[in-house]
Amino acid sequence: MLGKLLLPEVRELIASGDESTLRDILSRWSPADVVELFDELSDDEDLAGMQMMSGPQRARVFEYLDRRSQMHLLGALPSESVRSLLNEIADDDRTAILGEFSESEQKRLLMLLSDEQRVIAESLLTYPENCIGRLMTPHFVAVLPHWTVQHVLDHIRQHGQDSETLNVVYIVDNDHKLIDDLRIRKVLLAKPTQYLSEILDNNFVSLKVHDSKRDAVEIFRQYDRTALPVVDEVGKLLGVVTIDDVIDIAEESATADMQKLGGLEALNEPYDTTPLLTMIRKRAVWLVVLFLGEMLTATAMGFFEVEIAKAVVLALFVPLIISSGGNSGSQAATLIVRALALGEVGLKDWLRVFRREVISGLALGCTLGMIGFTRIALWTTFSNIYGPHWFLIGLTVGFSLIGIVLWGTIAGAMLPFALKRIGLDPATSSAPLVATLVDVTGLIIYFSVAILLLRGTLL
Amino acid sequence: MLGKLLLPEVRELIASGDESTLRDILSRWSPADVVELFDELSDDEDLAGMQMMSGPQRARVFEYLDRRSQMHLLGALPSESVRSLLNEIADDDRTAILGEFSESEQKRLLMLLSDEQRVIAESLLTYPENCIGRLMTPHFVAVLPHWTVQHVLDHIRQHGQDSETLNVVYIVDNDHKLIDDLRIRKVLLAKPTQYLSEILDNNFVSLKVHDSKRDAVEIFRQYDRTALPVVDEVGKLLGVVTIDDVIDIAEESATADMQKLGGLEALNEPYDTTPLLTMIRKRAVWLVVLFLGEMLTATAMGFFEVEIAKAVVLALFVPLIISSGGNSGSQAATLIVRALALGEVGLKDWLRVFRREVISGLALGCTLGMIGFTRIALWTTFSNIYGPHWFLIGLTVGFSLIGIVLWGTIAGAMLPFALKRIGLDPATSSAPLVATLVDVTGLIIYFSVAILLLRGTLL
Repeated sequence: MLGKLLLPEVRELIASGDESTLRDILSRWSPADVVELFDELSDDEDLAGMQMMSGPQRARVFEYLDRRSQMHLLGALPSESVRSLLNEIADDDRTAILGEFSESEQKRLLMLLSDEQRVIAESLLTYPENCIGRLMTPHFVAVLPHWTVQHVLDHIRQHGQDSETLNVVYIVDNDHKLIDDLRIRKVLLAKPTQYLSEILDNNFVSLKVHDSKRDAVEIFRQYDRTALPVVDEVGKLLGVVTIDDVIDIAEESATADMQKLGGLEALNEPYDTTPLLTMIRKRAVWLVVLFLGEMLTATAMGFFEVEIAKAVVLALFVPLIISSGGNSGSQAATLIVRALALGEVGLKDWLRVFRREVISGLALGCTLGMIGFTRIALWTTFSNIYGPHWFLIGLTVGFSLIGIVLWGTIAGAMLPFALKRIGLDPATSSAPLVATLVDVTGLIIYFSVAILLLRGTLL
Repeated sequence: MLGKLLLPEVRELIASGDESTLRDILSRWSPADVVELFDELSDDEDLAGMQMMSGPQRARVFEYLDRRSQMHLLGALPSESVRSLLNEIADDDRTAILGEFSESEQKRLLMLLSDEQRVIAESLLTYPENCIGRLMTPHFVAVLPHWTVQHVLDHIRQHGQDSETLNVVYIVDNDHKLIDDLRIRKVLLAKPTQYLSEILDNNFVSLKVHDSKRDAVEIFRQYDRTALPVVDEVGKLLGVVTIDDVIDIAEESATADMQKLGGLEALNEPYDTTPLLTMIRKRAVWLVVLFLGEMLTATAMGFFEVEIAKAVVLALFVPLIISSGGNSGSQAATLIVRALALGEVGLKDWLRVFRREVISGLALGCTLGMIGFTRIALWTTFSNIYGPHWFLIGLTVGFSLIGIVLWGTIAGAMLPFALKRIGLDPATSSAPLVATLVDVTGLIIYFSVAILLLRGTLL
């Protein structure tokens, strides 16, 4: 807001190189506001602006930038600025950025760090990309149970500056094993003379360093905490994860699931910064797989070529009938994929879901079947397009719809369970994949019903 | 974890009515763990368990339950327990639950509240359901700028007990207008003798009480805060919203978007607790709309009945060709809907997106077109199914695919923009809706190309 109003002034200050005035103005803004301003400026102006800011603010602003801008700045800034940036930004952000670089680039950047920071960065990078270790920071406040509340407050004042969060303090024993986490609330509400051992309850939730990032989202959701401790196999406190990272992960996994449901590989970066070729490739893969699968429809139709030649009217309803199967399957698959992702249903619930979906499929199929039959009956009163056997054609369309919608619903609901059961991602059961599966079988159902009902009349 | 191990013991304690032992055991658990245990117990056991817990713990556990269980308990517990529960639970949870009841029930429940709590609950219920007012709690710590840090700490210790969060304190002027918010970090790191006016920077972000819940998600994401203040039109501090509520909203909106993209109305409650009839209705609405739209395919096919009768082979490729248009449209729509929801692209970017999608559509269309042509050429070397004019048929299929995939991609990418432009939800452009739109036009493209290329030979 503020940023956009002052845009021309800031542009001029950058152009004229008036460092002290710019630094003075920007120092009064929050990092998020500076980033909003930078979004309006050109890459070159961003670069100049970054160099003019004070070190600590530069680091805060850098943390709020999107990954693409971060990578660009690290390539474009003079190495002295890169050094100070990398030494000052939060550990979890640094790990995420370094993880984007090739191994040799990573080594070069690690060499810019101070000894202390390099040890931290290297140890965090040893964790696999998808696990909680990559999200944590080893900067937290750890205290001992025999301390008083006043002692804790004094300790925080002297040593808390570098801690990622001061909303929670961690109580450890002499082996650095986690005993409890105390929300700052409890410390602030307690009498200064109280011992921690009197207010702790040994009741804490922790993340395992090798758990997946998605697990972290689940546990944060369940326990309503703003920060959670991360421990190793024997319970030693390694770091903390804060909730701001977790919101991003929750949104990223929802995005990836949505894109898979839409029938493409997850982009893993924003739409507008994904290189065009990468995006086309990620879409082409599935589009070609689906196309190859859908080719079976031409084969299936080929089997019924004689019937189509005898009764061309049958061909007219093919798109209507198979799309209904695809649509009902897409609905069912979407519902189940999301319910599985949120833990609302699990693998063990498949039979219960199956029963629900059979009822839903029958109800939906009968609805569409009746509409389909009515449509044919209505048209017949106005024109002769369906000939003397319109009643039988109507029945064929109606019964086929019941069968195909029921089948589409069941297939769409069960495919995510099947994929999860064999260890694949349920979100792969996209609307287009389910539609393709259902199209081929839908044709077979439709023409089988037709042969059954129309033999001796049209066929 | 713990809960499941002790399940038989807890069952027995509930059955035998051994209140003091049960209360003793449960008091050592966190609310989230008690809820996990309750999930394993029957509704009657939950009810008995709730009555045996101490008042404050009962309230915390109640807050963690899902909405269905909460409603059930409020109906089943004796009114004395309901009274103590409603008076003790957090304001935002209470507002959400009361909002679920009919007006007369709501009045009855409000009468159970103490005068003080009733005033709060009634004022929060006046805000519309989808706005931030419904999420906030009026319990926060407000301090004055001329106070010292020590004064703030003493104030918190005496009056902070009821505050929803102590991670942030709010600085107001004498008119209760918000001047700044201070993370507790800053307070803890400052010298006790410092005045707040020395450490505040007047740089804060606030939510407007009438903003939408989705706006809150966006602002929390952007500013990495654990709590944000809510102000009225003139900047008076009304309450605070904490981040735990916001994660739930982010996931709920992602779920709703996904369900709309899957071609059904958003359920707005978990899959397994949605009544079957409600779910069928929410799916039937869109399924019927799509079915009615898809009926146009039968009409379109009817226009080309003569051509199909002359060259039945054309009918064989209808499902293959129209599904490719639907699939590419589904991909494009999914990408754009999510990018719009996350703010990665905005309405003003439509032309840039259009250009990208034209290139993508052409590339994807050519890929499928070539595969389609190759398939027909290959089959011809093995069989005579496509007759002497296989080459022309191949060209027809190939060129139609280029046109249809291009058209599907453009339609899928532009529909979300169009919906947003006229004030509708972009997520309504579901895979099935786009597929339906593209099916009719796809048939027209296909048969037009066929008439153009096959006139004089097959047609």
